[in-house]
Amino acid sequence: MNKITSLFEIKYPIVSGGMVWCSGWRLASAVSNAGGLGLIGAGSMHPEVLQEHIVKCKNATNKPFGVNIPLLYPEIEAIIKIVIEQKVPVVFTSAGNPKTWTQTLKKEGIKVAHVVSSSKFALKCQDAGVDAVVAEGFEAGGHNGAEETTTMVLIPQVRQVLDIPLIAAGGIATGEGMLAAFALGVQGVQIGTRFALTQESSASEEFKNRCVNLNEGDTMLALKKIGATRLIKNEFYNQVKQAEDKGATAEQLKELLGKGKSKKGIFEGDLENGELEIGQVASLIKDLPTVQEVVENIVEHFNQGIGKLDKILM
Amino acid sequence: MNKITSLFEIKYPIVSGGMVWCSGWRLASAVSNAGGLGLIGAGSMHPEVLQEHIVKCKNATNKPFGVNIPLLYPEIEAIIKIVIEQKVPVVFTSAGNPKTWTQTLKKEGIKVAHVVSSSKFALKCQDAGVDAVVAEGFEAGGHNGAEETTTMVLIPQVRQVLDIPLIAAGGIATGEGMLAAFALGVQGVQIGTRFALTQESSASEEFKNRCVNLNEGDTMLALKKIGATRLIKNEFYNQVKQAEDKGATAEQLKELLGKGKSKKGIFEGDLENGELEIGQVASLIKDLPTVQEVVENIVEHFNQGIGKLDKILM
Repeated sequence: MNKITSLFEIKYPIVSGGMVWCSGWRLASAVSNAGGLGLIGAGSMHPEVLQEHIVKCKNATNKPFGVNIPLLYPEIEAIIKIVIEQKVPVVFTSAGNPKTWTQTLKKEGIKVAHVVSSSKFALKCQDAGVDAVVAEGFEAGGHNGAEETTTMVLIPQVRQVLDIPLIAAGGIATGEGMLAAFALGVQGVQIGTRFALTQESSASEEFKNRCVNLNEGDTMLALKKIGATRLIKNEFYNQVKQAEDKGATAEQLKELLGKGKSKKGIFEGDLENGELEIGQVASLIKDLPTVQEVVENIVEHFNQGIGKLDKILM
Repeated sequence: MNKITSLFEIKYPIVSGGMVWCSGWRLASAVSNAGGLGLIGAGSMHPEVLQEHIVKCKNATNKPFGVNIPLLYPEIEAIIKIVIEQKVPVVFTSAGNPKTWTQTLKKEGIKVAHVVSSSKFALKCQDAGVDAVVAEGFEAGGHNGAEETTTMVLIPQVRQVLDIPLIAAGGIATGEGMLAAFALGVQGVQIGTRFALTQESSASEEFKNRCVNLNEGDTMLALKKIGATRLIKNEFYNQVKQAEDKGATAEQLKELLGKGKSKKGIFEGDLENGELEIGQVASLIKDLPTVQEVVENIVEHFNQGIGKLDKILM
């Protein structure tokens, strides 16, 4: 037991990221059934779709699970209403001001964590009364902080200003990675990419197969002028890169991005014209196991890693 | 004892980076005297200056030390001749082909390590016969890899292809950071920024004082079109950024960079017009201790960290 497992009433301090087009009820319930905390990703769901996923998730697990809500979501009030009505036990919020909804959710008995990419925002979260903070490094997939601080640097930086429990995210896909994050001072990890690349992830087979064939350097942070996003290098990325190299403005990039590009890429499997969001650590991943296998493997290597470190006391 | 301490015949598997304008004989000998492996940075030295630093370093320590040589250095043959004549026990090479000089140095009984930023180049080093590889992540200061792979992702990636000892670099400044790197599978760490910000570092007081007042996001990777370099945001950086945002070509950036900008910034303390190279982890550092204090602190926290991890077996 540690602060994260007791806070969320789970067996292992392992949270699955609420990833657009990957984190539906199947992935979330599988993670919770395996002893972690599964999150449904509301970012790619209309309110009625989210409601359906929550109901199905409850039918698939009797363990705690959560919903990740990007606070800049246009239908945010409908989403908040649903998680309260459905008595979702945990909400992870991101991309917005933690003060806006934290107390509303906490009054309903919902545990709240907020995702940040700097110690400045981590402190704002603590002041807003969240139960835990997720600090996410530069290597993470999808939307990303402007400071470009990596997990290795960000975690100690956030740890030293925070009193409440801390969860590391970005670049963690293995038990060894989880152990490294714990060495830096966290009580839990949020794992995205590794869970996006499982049987239960709702991403398309085309997307998953592309991800398990990536090499180092095949994802890059792009679109910095309109919101830094980590993408796989494909035809769409090349267009963005070319435009950026020539000095494209925010408006030009917005036009190039258009709408629905992440659905097209991740969910529909259009590998050239879609926006393929995945973490840098995908290059380490070469298989598509079940969630249960992933969690068992992480726990086993985490424990083995502790045994190995014991022998190297200086 | 581990593979790195026995290879270099040192007490602690801690190497100081061979940093331009920081790593002279004072810093290198202090690190070696404290039980690590101190490196003299040849990158900012003419051959006769390097020779002087080697002689002074030998007078200041009877422990093993090394020289870091960027292989693209214009006077490379003179530099190689000096390290052989002076019987320097260890050479770290970087920025060039490891095949060119490794065997020449090894025939003289010199231990050789090469710095890389990808597993592809790590394998090339192993094939070239180096004794160890340094894998350096995106968070490192100064010159940096094009793949932008962070230490957290790079280390396991290199570890799984390599048979020879591995040293992690980038974002490591504390015992906790060193422990995280060991959890990811290395046998040693190369620490730059933390040693650049010590009493014995030859950087100017102006530069050191600027570095210990940095916040997250105050260093960024710039000049990607001519060789990615991590810099502190100052007037020079702003000029580069503005030019890049408008689509500046490699030629335009080379002109803007000019010559001698890192000497101006780091050694002469021109904080606005100089090129201020430092690692992202500088934002964690708020003091300018002696090298001895740094090494003792790292070892203490590394050992304490192992004790803490023991209690969290899952």
